[in-house]
Amino acid sequence: MDHHRALRRGFPETVLAEGKTPEQVARILGSLAAQSELVIATRASAEHFAAARADIPDAEYHEQARIIRVGPTPGPVADRPPVAVVTAGTSDIPVAEEAAVTAELAACSVERVWDVGVAGIHRLLEHREQLTRAGVIVVVAGMEGALASVVGGLVDVPVVAVPTSVGYGAAFEGLAALLGMLNSCASGVVVVNIDNGFGAGRFAAMVCRRTAHEDEQ
Amino acid sequence: MDHHRALRRGFPETVLAEGKTPEQVARILGSLAAQSELVIATRASAEHFAAARADIPDAEYHEQARIIRVGPTPGPVADRPPVAVVTAGTSDIPVAEEAAVTAELAACSVERVWDVGVAGIHRLLEHREQLTRAGVIVVVAGMEGALASVVGGLVDVPVVAVPTSVGYGAAFEGLAALLGMLNSCASGVVVVNIDNGFGAGRFAAMVCRRTAHEDEQ
Amino acid sequence: MDHHRALRRGFPETVLAEGKTPEQVARILGSLAAQSELVIATRASAEHFAAARADIPDAEYHEQARIIRVGPTPGPVADRPPVAVVTAGTSDIPVAEEAAVTAELAACSVERVWDVGVAGIHRLLEHREQLTRAGVIVVVAGMEGALASVVGGLVDVPVVAVPTSVGYGAAFEGLAALLGMLNSCASGVVVVNIDNGFGAGRFAAMVCRRTAHEDEQ
Amino acid sequence: MDHHRALRRGFPETVLAEGKTPEQVARILGSLAAQSELVIATRASAEHFAAARADIPDAEYHEQARIIRVGPTPGPVADRPPVAVVTAGTSDIPVAEEAAVTAELAACSVERVWDVGVAGIHRLLEHREQLTRAGVIVVVAGMEGALASVVGGLVDVPVVAVPTSVGYGAAFEGLAALLGMLNSCASGVVVVNIDNGFGAGRFAAMVCRRTAHEDEQ
Amino acid sequence: MDHHRALRRGFPETVLAEGKTPEQVARILGSLAAQSELVIATRASAEHFAAARADIPDAEYHEQARIIRVGPTPGPVADRPPVAVVTAGTSDIPVAEEAAVTAELAACSVERVWDVGVAGIHRLLEHREQLTRAGVIVVVAGMEGALASVVGGLVDVPVVAVPTSVGYGAAFEGLAALLGMLNSCASGVVVVNIDNGFGAGRFAAMVCRRTAHEDEQ
Amino acid sequence: MDHHRALRRGFPETVLAEGKTPEQVARILGSLAAQSELVIATRASAEHFAAARADIPDAEYHEQARIIRVGPTPGPVADRPPVAVVTAGTSDIPVAEEAAVTAELAACSVERVWDVGVAGIHRLLEHREQLTRAGVIVVVAGMEGALASVVGGLVDVPVVAVPTSVGYGAAFEGLAALLGMLNSCASGVVVVNIDNGFGAGRFAAMVCRRTAHEDEQ
Amino acid sequence: MDHHRALRRGFPETVLAEGKTPEQVARILGSLAAQSELVIATRASAEHFAAARADIPDAEYHEQARIIRVGPTPGPVADRPPVAVVTAGTSDIPVAEEAAVTAELAACSVERVWDVGVAGIHRLLEHREQLTRAGVIVVVAGMEGALASVVGGLVDVPVVAVPTSVGYGAAFEGLAALLGMLNSCASGVVVVNIDNGFGAGRFAAMVCRRTAHEDEQ
Amino acid sequence: MDHHRALRRGFPETVLAEGKTPEQVARILGSLAAQSELVIATRASAEHFAAARADIPDAEYHEQARIIRVGPTPGPVADRPPVAVVTAGTSDIPVAEEAAVTAELAACSVERVWDVGVAGIHRLLEHREQLTRAGVIVVVAGMEGALASVVGGLVDVPVVAVPTSVGYGAAFEGLAALLGMLNSCASGVVVVNIDNGFGAGRFAAMVCRRTAHEDEQ
Repeated sequence: MDHHRALRRGFPETVLAEGKTPEQVARILGSLAAQSELVIATRASAEHFAAARADIPDAEYHEQARIIRVGPTPGPVADRPPVAVVTAGTSDIPVAEEAAVTAELAACSVERVWDVGVAGIHRLLEHREQLTRAGVIVVVAGMEGALASVVGGLVDVPVVAVPTSVGYGAAFEGLAALLGMLNSCASGVVVVNIDNGFGAGRFAAMVCRRTAHEDEQ
Repeated sequence: MDHHRALRRGFPETVLAEGKTPEQVARILGSLAAQSELVIATRASAEHFAAARADIPDAEYHEQARIIRVGPTPGPVADRPPVAVVTAGTSDIPVAEEAAVTAELAACSVERVWDVGVAGIHRLLEHREQLTRAGVIVVVAGMEGALASVVGGLVDVPVVAVPTSVGYGAAFEGLAALLGMLNSCASGVVVVNIDNGFGAGRFAAMVCRRTAHEDEQ
Repeated sequence: MDHHRALRRGFPETVLAEGKTPEQVARILGSLAAQSELVIATRASAEHFAAARADIPDAEYHEQARIIRVGPTPGPVADRPPVAVVTAGTSDIPVAEEAAVTAELAACSVERVWDVGVAGIHRLLEHREQLTRAGVIVVVAGMEGALASVVGGLVDVPVVAVPTSVGYGAAFEGLAALLGMLNSCASGVVVVNIDNGFGAGRFAAMVCRRTAHEDEQ
Repeated sequence: MDHHRALRRGFPETVLAEGKTPEQVARILGSLAAQSELVIATRASAEHFAAARADIPDAEYHEQARIIRVGPTPGPVADRPPVAVVTAGTSDIPVAEEAAVTAELAACSVERVWDVGVAGIHRLLEHREQLTRAGVIVVVAGMEGALASVVGGLVDVPVVAVPTSVGYGAAFEGLAALLGMLNSCASGVVVVNIDNGFGAGRFAAMVCRRTAHEDEQ
Repeated sequence: MDHHRALRRGFPETVLAEGKTPEQVARILGSLAAQSELVIATRASAEHFAAARADIPDAEYHEQARIIRVGPTPGPVADRPPVAVVTAGTSDIPVAEEAAVTAELAACSVERVWDVGVAGIHRLLEHREQLTRAGVIVVVAGMEGALASVVGGLVDVPVVAVPTSVGYGAAFEGLAALLGMLNSCASGVVVVNIDNGFGAGRFAAMVCRRTAHEDEQ
Repeated sequence: MDHHRALRRGFPETVLAEGKTPEQVARILGSLAAQSELVIATRASAEHFAAARADIPDAEYHEQARIIRVGPTPGPVADRPPVAVVTAGTSDIPVAEEAAVTAELAACSVERVWDVGVAGIHRLLEHREQLTRAGVIVVVAGMEGALASVVGGLVDVPVVAVPTSVGYGAAFEGLAALLGMLNSCASGVVVVNIDNGFGAGRFAAMVCRRTAHEDEQ
Repeated sequence: MDHHRALRRGFPETVLAEGKTPEQVARILGSLAAQSELVIATRASAEHFAAARADIPDAEYHEQARIIRVGPTPGPVADRPPVAVVTAGTSDIPVAEEAAVTAELAACSVERVWDVGVAGIHRLLEHREQLTRAGVIVVVAGMEGALASVVGGLVDVPVVAVPTSVGYGAAFEGLAALLGMLNSCASGVVVVNIDNGFGAGRFAAMVCRRTAHEDEQ
Repeated sequence: MDHHRALRRGFPETVLAEGKTPEQVARILGSLAAQSELVIATRASAEHFAAARADIPDAEYHEQARIIRVGPTPGPVADRPPVAVVTAGTSDIPVAEEAAVTAELAACSVERVWDVGVAGIHRLLEHREQLTRAGVIVVVAGMEGALASVVGGLVDVPVVAVPTSVGYGAAFEGLAALLGMLNSCASGVVVVNIDNGFGAGRFAAMVCRRTAHEDEQ
């Protein structure tokens, strides 16, 4: 493991639990936690957490976000604008929570706006003021992923779009949402991998953190 | 040619010009025009029209729609609700015109609403009243095709979505818009082939015509 | 939840059960049923229904259609033409039932025509009269999906085509049928997502309802 | 060149002109013609033919089929059942002609049935008797390719289906027709590559020839 | 069910078991068996067979071929050339058996040639004489599917190629073999759907049967 | 046109020239320039520029970036960190220039780092200090697009990755680079559409501008 | 089985266990082991091994590599340069072990370099000397597969790249890594199928063996 | 340019001409030639060469291989086994020549074996002895690409397979051949990008060169 890399970036060392056994995840987390105040595992199942908890009593589990955390979540740094995390539907919430918790672990404040999909545009419009105040917006949507374009056109804030695998048939496990977001007619929209809430939260936090860093100068 | 089929359907016999030589199109149109009051050719180039005009002096060309018409456009039948044709951007207009002219040729009145893409949602919202009064709405959009979902969520009117090949890169010649529209989170949205303005206009007219037909009873 | 939207559309509020836990579905249905006379959940498993039934004693289950219904199915509105629902094969029936029940929930009368795939064209031809009287036809077919084109060519009625994931190998989970239906050589054919019986039934009912609405004027 | 292979198979040596310069095609045809009574080039343009004609005065060009022939077409062998070649639309004729001419060059009689696509099913039904008498049927269709299934269900004759690149948008250059034909719900249908009229004609002739060969024993 | 179609074709009525419950398959087979001497179900699991056997005591199960048969396999008709069924590897045998049993059920004699993949070309060459005597060859191969081209080049006999889903990674569930076979550089090769042993056997039998029919004249 | 939207965002109104005629672009630019100090057209050809110049004498052309500009480029706002634009190869420069000029038009300073592809990793390492000082890095790369991951792992700065259509064969017009960038093993990497230099520059400028905005408070 | 082929190649006869039952694998291995000193089965599960061990007491299991071995691993031949096997991440190790064990079974020495993905480029650079001394390098990586390009650019040694199915979403089961490696901007990189550690190890050993063979002359 | 990299690898610095203007190629070649004895440009058109020749009088053009060379081709180093380059058909020769010339520029001797596709397996078998003596074999094939598997099974020599874009329809510009080669049932086969003759020749030469290098010790 390259601990220097982790420290250099001001973000907890992160283990991708998916594809590893519960025992492997528990062992790696334990080893990392011996050297760092805060370490996490993403895409972690309940089994991963059970194994980790057995070894590391103060491990905690963000269940919806599927994140195991060892060490305290830092409080948000003052004067940084919040990260807004927005979902189209209820089924997008687990990926959105992964993004939200990730940003919080990077000391950002997060505002959650759930279930404002474009089929009911007025619900979204009611949140316009709130979204305008965000430093960056993470938009999480499956099916056709149209929410990213609408949000990107609505407010003058950078948008990180996360396509989800929510949907069926020609959604092709998130491909439809991915292509939709890549072809957004709104400018200011960038995209991460399907279901990659962690990547979106991490990027949002980097933008948010740099903003604050400049403030401090 | 199966003329009975054409008559049975109350729509002019239609020739797909694309993939035929100008001479072939001129000859077929001439032959059909000898037996019918109104015949058309779709996806017709200027060359197709030049050849047709040389043979059939009263042939006319709907240039943007790329439709050659031989015979008079019927006036709209009274009491039928209008077909609304809506585009996301300027580049979608040729396909939208193909839909609009097709519906007009089936004796529907058409309302054109151009350039109301979701990146500027307020332009679309200004047309809400107008769209609510339509009998059916044809939504024409390329890139991510999000307009279909937003319109479908906005008004309680059946929506026929036409993905266009407008865009580049991961638009994949209209595939992104097609998948987006098929996965629309709004109900009441159906889809036709990429750039198939004719098909959308034809279907819209069938719905509109049946509505009127019921009225007459 | 945006109840006004539901009321505005004259269709029961609908919950997509797939991707939600039985408990979530039961809770949402219960909450909606407290405010509306009729609510439904689609793509619901037996487990979803068991949980719903435990909370809401008068919940009912359309098993083949996989729809949970709370509240009475409205009787069909007189003078509306029926919706015909047609399948190519036996395996397409669950998706077809989803379409049929959906249309019935919107107060349409439905005629079911099962198992008239194109490999035995004469069975379909026997139903021609019946299909001609329909207000709209929902065609449900997997494999190559050819039935949509044949029906579209046979009668002068709008066709909503539903590709199903029935088939194997190069059927690619419904992609072959989807592409076939999008490229139908018959005009008057529109398409919804793979296995989206609900979307087809909903659209068919919108067309049927508007027709009736005009009648009433 | 492996002339023995050609002779062994009872079919003229064949050059694929596409991808070769006119000069190359002319030179290869000339060399082959010095050793064989009958040689051909497929997918040949007018330029290919001009170069061949300059070198080989008795070269002939089947223009629609895009086949250059050097040597006499053999008369059909008596008592072999004919090969029927059927198209869905006018634009499929060049590929169908390639199949038909190929079968004729293998000493089969060919019956051409043009323009019987499924959107007008009655035109096809009128040809049922004729198709039943064929030894093998080549079905040539683009767009959704549904004709292969309908023919396969209609008569008890082996069907060789040729998808064509006719269509646009989600036809994806013949992919929709290819997938449709591979998933045909009718049994007795086999498929060749997109636009491969030569392959279909060649296979049909092999079936036809063997039939006759058995007769002679 | 369209029994006339089955009788017309001289092949037992066939039920596709896959996608049906064991009870459904047992019921349909029982109903068909009451009217026909020989009926079958394809892609049938052991559970399907157990249910069928409980209802129909003389049902038999071709386990590798996954075919349930009710009624006697007809003996091969004399003077028809045999159908050769060839596999590249051991894992292709179930699909090959489906083809072989299907051809036998149509009264063809079948010669099985297993495990002659192109990585050991000499094993295949040893069977050249045998293959030359066949009336039609069914080639069953997964992975890259190269065996179809090599057999097609080796002997002057029509080849029906069956791609299988054997392989992993970029085999994409049989897509690689399917594309390879469609692009065969050997002429005389046609293709059926991935894993469609039934379709290949059925087509081979139709060719074989017609050949014999001509003999009888 | 929605001018308020443009003003609200602090970025010049932008016309997508591609897909429009030179005359259309000239007319739209002229109309916009009458109301705004600075307007641009992207993906503009030399023909587009010639037409624009004829109408608007002070139009200027960023040839490599294919951007027509009417009005002065704003000087970079002090105290904002620069945007670094990095390319893998020479052929990526046009897309990179589009990103760079776009960021400059939004009043950002830009540092160009050309031709540091991963096949010669030491050239990239020499720029590490420079990249670390950037506020955001735009990485432009075709073929396998690996540069985005390496840059993302090297420095703790947000990375906007632009896949380009540079490459051939299995590059599939930029698809390989797009997928590679979406699956980057480095965190802090987001992606825009293939060849979308404008989108990347626009997003980078939004991040850069907000940073400065916070500074000013 | 073609034993001569196996002997000719100087590599143990190999059974692909995947897709075979444990009993089949045990039987084939037993039969082969009666004739050869060393035989193996690849892609073998624990169940495969249990069945093999029951029949063949001295069968051994390389668990991570999923290889069953019957007979002694040959010692590495002196003077052959080693094969280096390199992984991007921990999840790539099973495929890498398959490659490494395969090369060892062909009498090559192997150097394992785990977990040097490009997100931490300095870990890779520390291994540069070691990699330069290798005769051939097998690079095993999932996600975007960028490691192959970086290694290929770093040292002047032939690289065999193995894409793995590690990743999610737009990794598409290894497709992203496969395309990335095929489009590597570094020369000297070749590719095998997704997860095909055996193929890479086998090819590496062939190169290594030939090198030694030349030495001996 | 990183000249040290080029020197380190013992291969002439290489410019990819495709995608560059003739002037750019001429300028870069001139600059490189001032510092190196031998430089080349690949995928170069006649226009590229004309511009290069105007500036650099001793530039030479390998027309079929589309390679511009400035400086003398090195003679082959003694005692290295030859590289065999094999094609399936005539249309594959340009890509094969690119591979062959590339290997010659790296001081390898090359044996060309043209037109031994698997449809005429005996032509290939006649070359078996010759292929067995090669140090590495480059197999160049389009369509289904089966030649790679057959060669890989025939001789115990490493095979580098190059899929070409030769073919049409479902060849999908070389995709069919690429997938076929990746799934080769023969071991010892690795693959490069579609039409990448340079990459194959370069890799073959690296293998060949190392062999010789070991000899010299």
